Amino acid sequence: MKIITEEIRLATKGNPDLVNITDAVSKILSSSKLTQGMMSLFVVGSTAAITTFEYEPGLIEDIRDLFEKLIPQGRQYHHDETWHDANGFSHLRASLQGPSLIIPFKDGKLLLGQWQQVVLAEFDNRQRKRQVIVQLIGE
Amino acid sequence: MKIITEEIRLATKGNPDLVNITDAVSKILSSSKLTQGMMSLFVVGSTAAITTFEYEPGLIEDIRDLFEKLIPQGRQYHHDETWHDANGFSHLRASLQGPSLIIPFKDGKLLLGQWQQVVLAEFDNRQRKRQVIVQLIGE
Amino acid sequence: MKIITEEIRLATKGNPDLVNITDAVSKILSSSKLTQGMMSLFVVGSTAAITTFEYEPGLIEDIRDLFEKLIPQGRQYHHDETWHDANGFSHLRASLQGPSLIIPFKDGKLLLGQWQQVVLAEFDNRQRKRQVIVQLIGE
Repeated sequence: MKIITEEIRLATKGNPDLVNITDAVSKILSSSKLTQGMMSLFVVGSTAAITTFEYEPGLIEDIRDLFEKLIPQGRQYHHDETWHDANGFSHLRASLQGPSLIIPFKDGKLLLGQWQQVVLAEFDNRQRKRQVIVQLIGE
Repeated sequence: MKIITEEIRLATKGNPDLVNITDAVSKILSSSKLTQGMMSLFVVGSTAAITTFEYEPGLIEDIRDLFEKLIPQGRQYHHDETWHDANGFSHLRASLQGPSLIIPFKDGKLLLGQWQQVVLAEFDNRQRKRQVIVQLIGE
Repeated sequence: MKIITEEIRLATKGNPDLVNITDAVSKILSSSKLTQGMMSLFVVGSTAAITTFEYEPGLIEDIRDLFEKLIPQGRQYHHDETWHDANGFSHLRASLQGPSLIIPFKDGKLLLGQWQQVVLAEFDNRQRKRQVIVQLIGE
């Protein structure tokens, strides 16, 4: 049994940017030579999240609409009075969705469904440099 | 330390079907003979999720009402224009709730609360065959 | 590779109480002497959750407002008819947010962002004694 800690670094655009990181995390698994175990993903920071969905243009728009409905950008949040950076909505969206995800792997492959992509959800209202920790525990 | 990858296969009814899988995952733990470690659950596919709640009829109805309020079934979603299978709401619900869960175990028992059941949430609008990956890391 | 299972016990106030447990979980990591691995958190019970957000007064109020908007306390839920303890909203909030979280660590430190605190969200409508399981797998 081994443990391997890698990371993905990427630049996001902000203003709900949904980035497909499935290939990037799959490459980390291939390079590790591990065949069976658990991959954990964790995004560092409090205005982004990790999620999974079918990565196609219609659903990308639906996910944006959903978060705009549940936690609208245009409203004034108490957090905005603290830092005056107007991203209270970003924090709330990230907290609700969550920063971490677990994906099992076997025979050297992630056990994702065919239409189940791994997505970094950038909820901040500006460009960011993001770090996603990819940790593998397995054999 | 060992790693064991098992799966549960089950047929769901669709149209929000909430299935209690607590006994099924507990049996996998018993069979493993492991006493201390981490169980991870992951549902394969993009229209179902894993959650926990007190599995009683009132709350089952409340959970259905909640998702109907947050992400109504009757509305037109952009995803529906892509595949014309009218399950955009299913994808959104599954993405918001999430496909994975971690439960620790000790002395051979899952450390769940008495009223805390493990539930597969089938959000798709039709019958499905589901695969839940149950992975144990421990000793 | 080792596995260590610890717990945090704390008394909460109820009526959305958001408790910063970042220091408590960091101390468990320091005491373990592990340097690289995965920390999993799991709250026992069905009316509390684990989340992460920037722990400052404005955002604490925003998080309370958000859950009050998505799942209002004042409404009658089916669950309330089952037990007559009027905490149906607590169960729904806990289920939506989720009981578990994974945080990776390296060089003996949790890889959290500077503004990313770990928070126990007590959603019950009364004081509770809570148990958070903190499990470390690593080396």
